[in-house]
Amino acid sequence: MAQTTAWTRRHVLSLADFAPHEYDTILQTAASFREVLSRRTKKVPALQGQVVANLFFESSTRTRSSFELAAKRLSADTLNFAPGTSSMTKGETILDTAKTYLAMGANIMVIRHREAGVPGAIAMAMDELQSGVSVLNAGDGQHEHPSQALLDLFTLCSLLDLENPRSEVLQGKKVAIVGDILHSRVARSNIWSLTAAGADVHLAGPPTLLPKLFADLLENKGDRGSLWLHWQLDPALENADFVMTLRLQHERMAQHLLPSLREYHHYFGITRDRLQQCHRDVKVLHPGPVNRGVELSSDLMDDPRLSLISQQVTSGVAVRMALLYLLGSRKTE
Amino acid sequence: MAQTTAWTRRHVLSLADFAPHEYDTILQTAASFREVLSRRTKKVPALQGQVVANLFFESSTRTRSSFELAAKRLSADTLNFAPGTSSMTKGETILDTAKTYLAMGANIMVIRHREAGVPGAIAMAMDELQSGVSVLNAGDGQHEHPSQALLDLFTLCSLLDLENPRSEVLQGKKVAIVGDILHSRVARSNIWSLTAAGADVHLAGPPTLLPKLFADLLENKGDRGSLWLHWQLDPALENADFVMTLRLQHERMAQHLLPSLREYHHYFGITRDRLQQCHRDVKVLHPGPVNRGVELSSDLMDDPRLSLISQQVTSGVAVRMALLYLLGSRKTE
Amino acid sequence: MAQTTAWTRRHVLSLADFAPHEYDTILQTAASFREVLSRRTKKVPALQGQVVANLFFESSTRTRSSFELAAKRLSADTLNFAPGTSSMTKGETILDTAKTYLAMGANIMVIRHREAGVPGAIAMAMDELQSGVSVLNAGDGQHEHPSQALLDLFTLCSLLDLENPRSEVLQGKKVAIVGDILHSRVARSNIWSLTAAGADVHLAGPPTLLPKLFADLLENKGDRGSLWLHWQLDPALENADFVMTLRLQHERMAQHLLPSLREYHHYFGITRDRLQQCHRDVKVLHPGPVNRGVELSSDLMDDPRLSLISQQVTSGVAVRMALLYLLGSRKTE
Repeated sequence: MAQTTAWTRRHVLSLADFAPHEYDTILQTAASFREVLSRRTKKVPALQGQVVANLFFESSTRTRSSFELAAKRLSADTLNFAPGTSSMTKGETILDTAKTYLAMGANIMVIRHREAGVPGAIAMAMDELQSGVSVLNAGDGQHEHPSQALLDLFTLCSLLDLENPRSEVLQGKKVAIVGDILHSRVARSNIWSLTAAGADVHLAGPPTLLPKLFADLLENKGDRGSLWLHWQLDPALENADFVMTLRLQHERMAQHLLPSLREYHHYFGITRDRLQQCHRDVKVLHPGPVNRGVELSSDLMDDPRLSLISQQVTSGVAVRMALLYLLGSRKTE
Repeated sequence: MAQTTAWTRRHVLSLADFAPHEYDTILQTAASFREVLSRRTKKVPALQGQVVANLFFESSTRTRSSFELAAKRLSADTLNFAPGTSSMTKGETILDTAKTYLAMGANIMVIRHREAGVPGAIAMAMDELQSGVSVLNAGDGQHEHPSQALLDLFTLCSLLDLENPRSEVLQGKKVAIVGDILHSRVARSNIWSLTAAGADVHLAGPPTLLPKLFADLLENKGDRGSLWLHWQLDPALENADFVMTLRLQHERMAQHLLPSLREYHHYFGITRDRLQQCHRDVKVLHPGPVNRGVELSSDLMDDPRLSLISQQVTSGVAVRMALLYLLGSRKTE
Repeated sequence: MAQTTAWTRRHVLSLADFAPHEYDTILQTAASFREVLSRRTKKVPALQGQVVANLFFESSTRTRSSFELAAKRLSADTLNFAPGTSSMTKGETILDTAKTYLAMGANIMVIRHREAGVPGAIAMAMDELQSGVSVLNAGDGQHEHPSQALLDLFTLCSLLDLENPRSEVLQGKKVAIVGDILHSRVARSNIWSLTAAGADVHLAGPPTLLPKLFADLLENKGDRGSLWLHWQLDPALENADFVMTLRLQHERMAQHLLPSLREYHHYFGITRDRLQQCHRDVKVLHPGPVNRGVELSSDLMDDPRLSLISQQVTSGVAVRMALLYLLGSRKTE
């Protein structure tokens, strides 16, 4: 397996304070698991006997399946907490639910919640109990979605150097992130990881979905790529190496933040034509699920020369294996 | 394990074009797995490291459990897609869901959907992507339910020759299929498999649920058993070797296709008395779940000398192991 | 593993007729599994190839997760029956569902149902079929919840003698059970196990939730601890060694059995102050999930010197492993 001597972090909650060597350890470990996944027998016994509890207070088949498969590939046992049929409806607090899974023997908790900060609060409580358990944020409100940004990073770095994906290959690259930046945990996590790798990040979206406060996000953040805000699409796309589109939630219309999906697509939808102004090797990403014809034109999404969407999903399993492996093998030393 | 050199089919979507040797390979393979299931340790490592994704867009605990157990017996990892908590509610297309599971590494997709043709459409898309993934139709609308018909075939052939179940033992047997033929994917798949085995199939049901168009189904279909239509029960039962009853959906009354369950039972319900006119060794089948007292009288259902319902369920695990094994080991050669 | 020569019981449905040696076999076996759970690799191959079907007609994430994890630790395959997506909605009887899982190859059925007696009825039907399958009651209406009482027993006995937990260590101890006794299957099962161990059990609750009929429960029941009824809290708590609180269902107010949660807490809620009158080493239990500030004050619940709630959850996995192991290895001799 990869060399992981440097890994000391117990929880993965946010990428805001991630160090460069941490990104590279994850990329390197994910690359070694990608190799495992190409074998006929795609399992390793790394986490045998350990329990990964998927506590998805906000439901998500896609992300939960990815974590579940990653855990099974590492031979861990998995427990799924389903919000619909849970004792949450019986009035138990979120923290009590987490403590119950701790007492059952969970070693790693993968937590998704619609409120920002819930995984962090659970991690803090687990530490106060000196439990040794690891918490992995699988998306909390509009805060962060670290594993998504890490799989995006792995996808981009692998494209630039398949054999040896490392964050420095993104130095000086221009990445456009387009859409509902305001409500996007995916965007927030990606801003941290991409600028840490030295990429220049250009945010583009309508003013209602991209408030000026983002401009201050990276102030005094040291040796990072730059961050730019655009209320039109063209300056963000111009000569961009990568275009990352974000999912648009239908409730934004009901909240009067957008007039219509059609108008959104007219001004900010990515089409083959619009990509002309990007770098000639430009690739498009989307965290899924896609609203076809809204964030992206349908034909673009299905074009393997332009879309990295499938690679993102595939990277997801390798990156989540890496995260679970690094957190899970930390404790046993 | 069974000799499977002949198996070349990538998907199992319909039995309409199944060749005789394909039926026999499945029967033979299922028989060898039945032997495995009688051992103390009921697992084989055949599909270790492979991923079976159960994409049940239409929910079904019974069929999904059977496929899940079959996959686990073969040491495959399973992923379950649950429609209620899925991203389908977020507007993702069915095909995008399938592509996501493909990108995660699924090797076999077991698909159920309320619309006829969905598994076929997904299989075509997977082939266009040159993915090598196999699709197994677990029931699509009113089209087909191949694994149900194959487990019925295995149940019947095993009854006639336990050691060496093969389709030729059904040659010349009379099988009555009774009930809501029109809406039954189980009936459609069984018509193909039973007539292919040389059995004579007699369909019986009220005219609203058995339109004349079924009479043309087998025209020019070569070396098959014959197909008969009856709007009364008696001619179908007369001297029948097997009586296959179909589940009656309660919504048929709302659709004015049936006056009442009671009247249905009066004219088409199978009772001990009515079986008098069948062959003296007659057996009754039902795909489950049974509406007791509607399709079948309750005492008949519980009589192990007359009912094959338990054997059908048991056969289901062995036959689904055979299908997964044949599809899953195909690719690794 | 533990010495289990004495174990002959096929089903665990109720503790009413449990023999002392049966309690001790379970405690001893659970202690050996607790040792397994403290190892790095927390799995044993004891039930490899066996199938544990969790048939939770009444949903419960907590108890189902505990059984599921116990089964996985023993290397069994698990099948989960989810009531929402089940064929129950299609009109199938409970018994037909159980027979279906039997026919699929289930070796042990863990059954929860809102009606008292359902697991017993299924067990009887399974025996009539000479199936050899074991049924484990995971909570039936207001009848019993044996695995909860057994994990409570294991928690208490382990506290008194960690190395060698056995029921005799509870001889002469005073255990208060406080709350909605009338509707509690947890209370009923605990009355059997605790008095069998020689503990004196003091029930306390408002008259609407603790009818006099409980006074007759243990009449002529031989060599057991005594049973007392109190409509005030203080006499139950006085010098008590353990205080077991019960979950209060919110629907009790709608049923006019209680004026308000606040009044309930005022008269029967357990607080740090109220524990002053207990034995100085008193510990508090609760089967979970807790309504914080109703059955227990929040600070008490979180105080590891007073609360055994986490230990109960941890004991749950070991005790359920013991039950599954004893039932599952019985059949193979």
